Amino acid sequence: MKNRSLISINDFSKEEQIGILDLAESFEKQPTRKILEGHVVANLFFEPSTRTRLSFDTAVNRLGGKVIGFADTSSTSVQKGESLKDTIIMVSNYSDLIVMRHPKDGSARYASEVSSVPIINAGDGANQHPTQCLLDMYSIRKTQGTLENLDIAFVGDLKYGRTVHSLVMALTNFNCRFHLVSPPELKLPSAVKMHIKEKQLEYTQYTELQDVLPIADIVYMTRIQRERFSDPIEYEKVKNAYILRNNMLKGSKESLRILHPLPRVNEINVDIDDNPKAYYFQQALNGVYVRQALVTSILGVI
Amino acid sequence: MKNRSLISINDFSKEEQIGILDLAESFEKQPTRKILEGHVVANLFFEPSTRTRLSFDTAVNRLGGKVIGFADTSSTSVQKGESLKDTIIMVSNYSDLIVMRHPKDGSARYASEVSSVPIINAGDGANQHPTQCLLDMYSIRKTQGTLENLDIAFVGDLKYGRTVHSLVMALTNFNCRFHLVSPPELKLPSAVKMHIKEKQLEYTQYTELQDVLPIADIVYMTRIQRERFSDPIEYEKVKNAYILRNNMLKGSKESLRILHPLPRVNEINVDIDDNPKAYYFQQALNGVYVRQALVTSILGVI
Amino acid sequence: MKNRSLISINDFSKEEQIGILDLAESFEKQPTRKILEGHVVANLFFEPSTRTRLSFDTAVNRLGGKVIGFADTSSTSVQKGESLKDTIIMVSNYSDLIVMRHPKDGSARYASEVSSVPIINAGDGANQHPTQCLLDMYSIRKTQGTLENLDIAFVGDLKYGRTVHSLVMALTNFNCRFHLVSPPELKLPSAVKMHIKEKQLEYTQYTELQDVLPIADIVYMTRIQRERFSDPIEYEKVKNAYILRNNMLKGSKESLRILHPLPRVNEINVDIDDNPKAYYFQQALNGVYVRQALVTSILGVI
Repeated sequence: MKNRSLISINDFSKEEQIGILDLAESFEKQPTRKILEGHVVANLFFEPSTRTRLSFDTAVNRLGGKVIGFADTSSTSVQKGESLKDTIIMVSNYSDLIVMRHPKDGSARYASEVSSVPIINAGDGANQHPTQCLLDMYSIRKTQGTLENLDIAFVGDLKYGRTVHSLVMALTNFNCRFHLVSPPELKLPSAVKMHIKEKQLEYTQYTELQDVLPIADIVYMTRIQRERFSDPIEYEKVKNAYILRNNMLKGSKESLRILHPLPRVNEINVDIDDNPKAYYFQQALNGVYVRQALVTSILGVI
Repeated sequence: MKNRSLISINDFSKEEQIGILDLAESFEKQPTRKILEGHVVANLFFEPSTRTRLSFDTAVNRLGGKVIGFADTSSTSVQKGESLKDTIIMVSNYSDLIVMRHPKDGSARYASEVSSVPIINAGDGANQHPTQCLLDMYSIRKTQGTLENLDIAFVGDLKYGRTVHSLVMALTNFNCRFHLVSPPELKLPSAVKMHIKEKQLEYTQYTELQDVLPIADIVYMTRIQRERFSDPIEYEKVKNAYILRNNMLKGSKESLRILHPLPRVNEINVDIDDNPKAYYFQQALNGVYVRQALVTSILGVI
Repeated sequence: MKNRSLISINDFSKEEQIGILDLAESFEKQPTRKILEGHVVANLFFEPSTRTRLSFDTAVNRLGGKVIGFADTSSTSVQKGESLKDTIIMVSNYSDLIVMRHPKDGSARYASEVSSVPIINAGDGANQHPTQCLLDMYSIRKTQGTLENLDIAFVGDLKYGRTVHSLVMALTNFNCRFHLVSPPELKLPSAVKMHIKEKQLEYTQYTELQDVLPIADIVYMTRIQRERFSDPIEYEKVKNAYILRNNMLKGSKESLRILHPLPRVNEINVDIDDNPKAYYFQQALNGVYVRQALVTSILGVI
């Protein structure tokens, strides 16, 4: 994978994705090593993020590398009208690898075409977030022992959630069954459903969260954003339908694990946090190992 | 002290406080060492700070450790409604130690209860600022040769100043005499005065700065904040009463040293800066050594 | 140069300037070394910058040093009314070298007078930007093989552009000829022209960009800022006169190179980016090597 950009999860084959997960396991065992000394990674966050930015920071720092960049654009030349192209060319002169988040769909792909160093897409608009997808896969494999033949429930905003789209597409390589719980306004887009059908896999659409809890191996919760709704009453209705509480987990599988890309607002009640089925905080930690695997593979030091 | 949080100065016994001061002395002699390599410290500043943040940065960097975090919340998930609990759990997954400043009283204590790594409170609202307290103690001991039996004058805003409250309480262990200079509106709270009385120590309240200058070993100046006053005329009156100028130091002890937690606005006139009795800039530097002592003790590398 | 501040390009003699360029060449060959371990450089950007800040970050990080500081003042004590003097004294206690950008002319000189560590001026208002000047000189020497006897065209805002003023003055030591292209409102200030005359060198003023393209060895483009003009129609007229396009380069010297301090807005059309005469991106990269030469010389590790 040396010197390759990661813009969409589909840029890496199934075998390459599994290779990253395997390598991430070795970083989970030994996250602190001196293998990135002298390397500089640029973190360019044109759109705010805490988790993704800090986990890349930690991933690189624990391996002895250095991080430069910005957490928002307020103090950058973007404010003076500098184009994305010029910013990326500049930063590719200063670093060995660029991690970028940007509000516009397609911006990461464009950046990879003008950059002299590889780009890792850390989220471009509603489009792709492939490192989140890989850490989700890592979390599923780790808790279930496999990625094959699982019942995966996705809950909440399936229309705009870039992490959902990436993960559904990745899991179509592993013969999973998809349980899609959303309000009618926020159904999974047809383009993504087509991917499921092409692999001749099953998917079922639900409006009630309760219906999928007894059958799911994984419940992947997402945040529903108020601003997606034109009618506030409609929002209030669905908002309350998708709050997962501890007492709703009675009757669920012993091996069920609950994931969430975080941040959450209220869609997972805090009374679940101490339930062994809650895995979202460990999931976020797994992001460090997956990002260490990606950065070292792309820089060619592993 | 390994793995213990420091939220209030009272979390450490008198002996432990002295242990930190002794260790800080060794860091003053040798501030650059490679003993934190591979360690990641998170600096989470939910409220702005230059001095405290940069001195922790320097303390950790000079010892070979790495720093992640944020200088304000504008580019973080706090803006998306993420709870303090979730932010702290996330960051405790990414780091070995969390340094945090937060505008709300009690937030640091709460964070220490949900975090899997130790927390150092770098200021929580008007409540506590224990690392400032330790560097103040270090500065007093260094300039006076002892912490025992001193005449300490506190000047300015004694009501809201968290550094004053912490330092007064810490010094009640050392048989000091307290000279409290403030406008009537900004007197030391009764709760803090109770601590002095419990140890059967003396305190005297003043309204005139001039009255304490001949007797003090230490004058601890603070900034009076305009926004504390409902009547702007009242503010203007007291503001001018508490500006320390070089000519006012005639007749003060040769060994007098002037401290200030900084930033100052106008309460210490710049004509004092070159007087050997001015110690506030060196005091700020001492913060690096005290923080090196704290971080290495809590991480257990010393 | 050990322990000396660099505020104006004139603080270094012609020989010292050449010494920095020679040292920068060695860093271009080997930019990653472990010679700044244990050193802390403070980057204080009171005014936003991407390029200058990130290139100092990279320069120091690739040599094993650590960087502390701030990218803007929104989260600093400057907001609480702290004076520049106090901020600089504080930071000089925490670091071995301060790099600062500030909106006010003369602020860097003042800072160097109160600081206990050397200051590198990274731009103070419309006054000076000496590290930009040195990287411009490096870029000219590298592409032309010499700094002597060249025809240098400066284009655009010659009145307010601090990089133009510094570079013109530096090049008067090298017997260059100056071709000054600007709208009447934005001519090179008389004070700078006096420097040229004192050395008995030639300068010619133009209003048409086309006139200098056939004779120039270097075309140094600058951004014209709309806010300089009281009459918007006047601005629109000159704005279009100074857009350099690829087809305008027919008839120019084979050895011509186009420089720009960046960021650009539209004054160099992107159709030039792939022309071998476009050198502005490489010019920005050269900034890393020049800054490595400066930092290591001033810290005395070379």
